[in-house]
Amino acid sequence: MREITADHMKDMARGAAVLGTGGGGDPYIGRLLAQQALERNGPVSLVDVDEVPDDALVVPTAFMGAPTVMVEKLPSGEETIRALRALEELLGRPVTHTVSIEAGGVNSMIPFVAAAELGLPLIDADGMGRAFPELQMLLPTLGGIRATPMALADERGNDLTLRTVDNAWAERLARSATVEMGCSAAVSLYALTGAQVKEHMVRGTMTLCERLGTTIREAARSHADPVQAATDVLGGRRVFTGKIVDVRRGTAAGFVRGDAVLDGLDEDTGHSLEFAFQNENLVVRRDGEILASVPDLICVLDTDTGEPVTTEFLRYGLRVSVVVAPCDPRWRTPEGLALAGPGVFGYDHPYVPV
Amino acid sequence: MREITADHMKDMARGAAVLGTGGGGDPYIGRLLAQQALERNGPVSLVDVDEVPDDALVVPTAFMGAPTVMVEKLPSGEETIRALRALEELLGRPVTHTVSIEAGGVNSMIPFVAAAELGLPLIDADGMGRAFPELQMLLPTLGGIRATPMALADERGNDLTLRTVDNAWAERLARSATVEMGCSAAVSLYALTGAQVKEHMVRGTMTLCERLGTTIREAARSHADPVQAATDVLGGRRVFTGKIVDVRRGTAAGFVRGDAVLDGLDEDTGHSLEFAFQNENLVVRRDGEILASVPDLICVLDTDTGEPVTTEFLRYGLRVSVVVAPCDPRWRTPEGLALAGPGVFGYDHPYVPV
Repeated sequence: MREITADHMKDMARGAAVLGTGGGGDPYIGRLLAQQALERNGPVSLVDVDEVPDDALVVPTAFMGAPTVMVEKLPSGEETIRALRALEELLGRPVTHTVSIEAGGVNSMIPFVAAAELGLPLIDADGMGRAFPELQMLLPTLGGIRATPMALADERGNDLTLRTVDNAWAERLARSATVEMGCSAAVSLYALTGAQVKEHMVRGTMTLCERLGTTIREAARSHADPVQAATDVLGGRRVFTGKIVDVRRGTAAGFVRGDAVLDGLDEDTGHSLEFAFQNENLVVRRDGEILASVPDLICVLDTDTGEPVTTEFLRYGLRVSVVVAPCDPRWRTPEGLALAGPGVFGYDHPYVPV
Repeated sequence: MREITADHMKDMARGAAVLGTGGGGDPYIGRLLAQQALERNGPVSLVDVDEVPDDALVVPTAFMGAPTVMVEKLPSGEETIRALRALEELLGRPVTHTVSIEAGGVNSMIPFVAAAELGLPLIDADGMGRAFPELQMLLPTLGGIRATPMALADERGNDLTLRTVDNAWAERLARSATVEMGCSAAVSLYALTGAQVKEHMVRGTMTLCERLGTTIREAARSHADPVQAATDVLGGRRVFTGKIVDVRRGTAAGFVRGDAVLDGLDEDTGHSLEFAFQNENLVVRRDGEILASVPDLICVLDTDTGEPVTTEFLRYGLRVSVVVAPCDPRWRTPEGLALAGPGVFGYDHPYVPV
């Protein structure tokens, strides 16, 4: 267990947005939200998975929706608390811990807001080891854990709860409600016991986020190569350095979808790279050939600063590097690929591990 | 109080579908559902509004969605019970009575199913004195009664609950969930006390349904004019007799919308009549001139049999008569017209009372 203060948030949000692979929300908004909550309420206890009692009641908190919308309709702690309390009421017993459902600039920070406001410990883990666009795409789903009961809350004061027959139905009904609520909503779902967290979540994600964020900041400050430094922490591979020359992006049905094209610079001059996204980056092609795809991580970083570039901030002229890195091994099983492999997103090519 | 058996259902469903003004569901499906429930569980006690204790907890039950879908995806008692139970759980105390939210071939019958299955008395009333397409269009809304907490249930086993800031938001969120659930869902909403029923509901609706249904059957059997007999019970006016020559109908966004054109027969030969609907009939024009509109009742009846013709069964060649009748006087107040007058449905003409 260690105490996390507002001072940690900038590095942690930066690293979370790297693991967010384009999605999971804007780290600037995420860290501001968490910093305010931590300054108001004092530090949050970050506990290791092994420190969590097996009978703990762990309730994750997150924001659902299109990140393009969340930069204009800002998430707030108020609806996060309402969503968590609504789920707690359904469960009929007090929540003991909160945790992040996915790594991302907003979705790794929202649990800090809930933890700070409610005085709950936060578990050093997440449900994916990255971010994915749909709520059933969580390692606990592979372990048979139900997403519901689930609660959604919007900024107006509307609350909604769900009990569904499976996690895909939770995604369908929650997505349509999120769209109606203005394309973003606070959610609380996948209530777990401590024992289930130990078995089905990814350990150490918050610490990895912080290490990634710190490494990038320090490399940039010391004029080292921040992209290379991040790549080393991820155990990944830099596949391209270039300039964004085209971005197509649309927000519909509760997601932002699109693709971007890069012209190569430096050693990649004369080559082209293209990647597609649905909130998160899905597939990356170099000169038309597939280099990597979900469930592996495809991270877009600012070449000079190493700062992660989320989907909503892709723009013409930006000089970025693309790094690919291996996902949690559970995503590479047949069951994992059936839940979040390329075929799920409509690609007919087989998954080739990074 | 009187006992209602399966034998009453055919007349009651027929009359309810007349008051449903095109919507509220198919009376054939409605009566089959209610008959089965009454045969299985015995009769239901129909109680007068004045017999309901002021502190009763009254929970209405209904089906929400597009009637065109409900004739293929049949409503069932199972999800009705789940919706009522989910709302009861939210309210935290036992339901004492159920009631119909609107008059309609299905929506007047569903409360009989709930009453029979759960052994609850049914109140002789409804929330509109007719049917309307959107859930906030209820007299209790005018009285400041909240539609939420509200529960929805589908046939797969998915349950959803809502607490919204107003009844228009309840409609928005429930409608999008209904669409996702396949365009029909069981709902339970507008929990009321007995005192609120006395003040804000329409008294005697179930008895009126039965009287209308009986009158039409008896007139048809004795070769009298069943349309005239129904018109007399409604205190309305027959405005047209003709043959349907055109129907446009589409199911989208959880409603069926469209319009129909009639060529006149008998004394209306040479004239034309047109009416538009959104689940329910909204506006009727004779030779282009508005004869009646919401919130007044526009009823389409089979000319020979007097049977009500709901929106989903309008078809070329059908010989029908159109009857208009006055709505509950509370709908004619400025507040009532602001909730369900022609302007709400996009018409710019003023309301002219029948």
